[in-house]
Amino acid sequence: MKDTLEETLKKIQPVDRASADAAIRHWDSIAHPLHSLGMLEDVIVQIASIQRTPVIDISKKCLITMCADNGVVEEGVTQTGQEVTAQVAENFLQEKATAGILCRKTGAEIFPIDIGIYRDTCIRNMKIAYGTQNMTKGPAMTREQAVQALETGIQAAAEKAAEGVRVLATGEMGIGNTTTSSAMASVLLHQPVETMTGRGAGLSSEGLKRKINAIKKAIEVNRPNPDDPVDVLAKVGGFDIGGMAGVFLGGAALGIPVVTDGFISNVAALTAVRICPEIKNYIIASHVSREPAAELLLKALGKKAFLTCEMCLGEGTGAVMLFPLLDMAAEVYTQMATFEQNDIEAYVHLK
Amino acid sequence: MKDTLEETLKKIQPVDRASADAAIRHWDSIAHPLHSLGMLEDVIVQIASIQRTPVIDISKKCLITMCADNGVVEEGVTQTGQEVTAQVAENFLQEKATAGILCRKTGAEIFPIDIGIYRDTCIRNMKIAYGTQNMTKGPAMTREQAVQALETGIQAAAEKAAEGVRVLATGEMGIGNTTTSSAMASVLLHQPVETMTGRGAGLSSEGLKRKINAIKKAIEVNRPNPDDPVDVLAKVGGFDIGGMAGVFLGGAALGIPVVTDGFISNVAALTAVRICPEIKNYIIASHVSREPAAELLLKALGKKAFLTCEMCLGEGTGAVMLFPLLDMAAEVYTQMATFEQNDIEAYVHLK
Repeated sequence: MKDTLEETLKKIQPVDRASADAAIRHWDSIAHPLHSLGMLEDVIVQIASIQRTPVIDISKKCLITMCADNGVVEEGVTQTGQEVTAQVAENFLQEKATAGILCRKTGAEIFPIDIGIYRDTCIRNMKIAYGTQNMTKGPAMTREQAVQALETGIQAAAEKAAEGVRVLATGEMGIGNTTTSSAMASVLLHQPVETMTGRGAGLSSEGLKRKINAIKKAIEVNRPNPDDPVDVLAKVGGFDIGGMAGVFLGGAALGIPVVTDGFISNVAALTAVRICPEIKNYIIASHVSREPAAELLLKALGKKAFLTCEMCLGEGTGAVMLFPLLDMAAEVYTQMATFEQNDIEAYVHLK
Repeated sequence: MKDTLEETLKKIQPVDRASADAAIRHWDSIAHPLHSLGMLEDVIVQIASIQRTPVIDISKKCLITMCADNGVVEEGVTQTGQEVTAQVAENFLQEKATAGILCRKTGAEIFPIDIGIYRDTCIRNMKIAYGTQNMTKGPAMTREQAVQALETGIQAAAEKAAEGVRVLATGEMGIGNTTTSSAMASVLLHQPVETMTGRGAGLSSEGLKRKINAIKKAIEVNRPNPDDPVDVLAKVGGFDIGGMAGVFLGGAALGIPVVTDGFISNVAALTAVRICPEIKNYIIASHVSREPAAELLLKALGKKAFLTCEMCLGEGTGAVMLFPLLDMAAEVYTQMATFEQNDIEAYVHLK
């Protein structure tokens, strides 16, 4: 029995303020200068509010990487052909792709999903189609396919939750997906295409022009409704973005925090938030990417980045980089003695 | 046979550009978008230049925490009494203090040193004196003691290097040491005391005023020479800051990268750089602390922070938070397949 989008949205509750307050009280009892771990304390408090208990559990973490191709690649908006999508996607499981290596190193699982690669692959098949349509000529997908992409993400989150995963992260692989992300971000944030578009995985200046023109044409041809995120996703988005947005929705419905990666992942997060504003409280930002729209997107999500390493790799790599920081914060939170146990003069008290 | 400051300075070589270039070539051969791990690629390149080989080794890491008391505490510049220095210092080894917990979690060693706590302690005794003098009434220490503090850090770095440690980090514990750090930063950077002084571990507005006044008085009474870092250290510094500066010097002399923590650690780094400018290339920044002078100091060091978590705990906690990121970057660098091995179309090529 798979949950529909509608059923999932009904399940999403506000996060639990009482658990957050209890977590704050616990931090303040720990023998360290008040709030001196800053955002790392805040994120543990947030996880408590999501998991609805101050006794948080982040032991089992999983990166879901949504992999799909994009019809717009025909327009010469990328450096490489779409063959690379399938190759990298299949490399995830063999630890030949960056995100796979990082997951192994941090003890997290990686769950790559073929949600729409142009050819058959050896990774989990949840394919909606063999790539989207070329959005400069019409909608990238039908509205039904957009909902299906969201429900695929919801299903993936539920599957991992059933296996005991307690923190999810979102990643992607899809040649052409900074083009679709810039298109969606431009529409959803009412920003000029130029402001929201960068060189992706390394485009020339000529290529960047083609990319901007393709996005402008796609928006012109399709006229997506900025107030209807599913319409925006269908017309100028991608299966991967839809799947990731679904992971945010599905995670929230099950009380699981979902970590965003960089640009593409944050577009998916914004899509989810526009579908259901409460999602914002279930999202944990990780890093700020080098893509030009990265900071604007974080601002729109009301999030601050923990990492400023100038990464722009995608795949979920920035999200996974946050995992050990979460583990270290949780270790202090759960293992450190309180002022009382330590018999230490309460060293520090200004909020 | 302990190395003197003079001998150490003679040993410090420029970092090795050829190893850096080889590391860059290796990154560029790895099957990922060019420079897409950003600063995490740069830091591996930097480590190669320091270790003088592209085959880097960062497996064994150690946080050296210099612990000392400061006579200026008499002036009411802190929230708590100096008793806390000894308590927290002794807690490091028992994993009751934050830095100890974080080191255990990341598999790093913690090496707390009593370089001048006001009472005897159970940690490694390299005590110069039972705390410094009150710098508002005269120099915090003699010039000989300042050199001794530097040489203590040099010795600590050498000891760990002999045990196979390949990455060092600097931390501290010393009630009153944001006061001495602000004093030193103010003199070394020619900045107004107000700009360089914050609330430390949680001072009231009244306390902040006292702190600023004490620093002004100390500078007035001692007239440290901004062009003589050892003079600045002796007159308005602390044993902990001197010890940490020594770790930077000693690490560099032995080809070991040294990770800075936040405000206090960066003042020590700046002191070392002023003693020997080449040190700059041996320093790895970690995070940007909440203390007001933090960004100015990083700028003076020519460094960018990886972490922006709004931490202000000290002890070396920010430095240790960087360790898993270094490990993950190194894992990709050493384990990931090259384009050639992967038979992947070189996906991405713009520098």
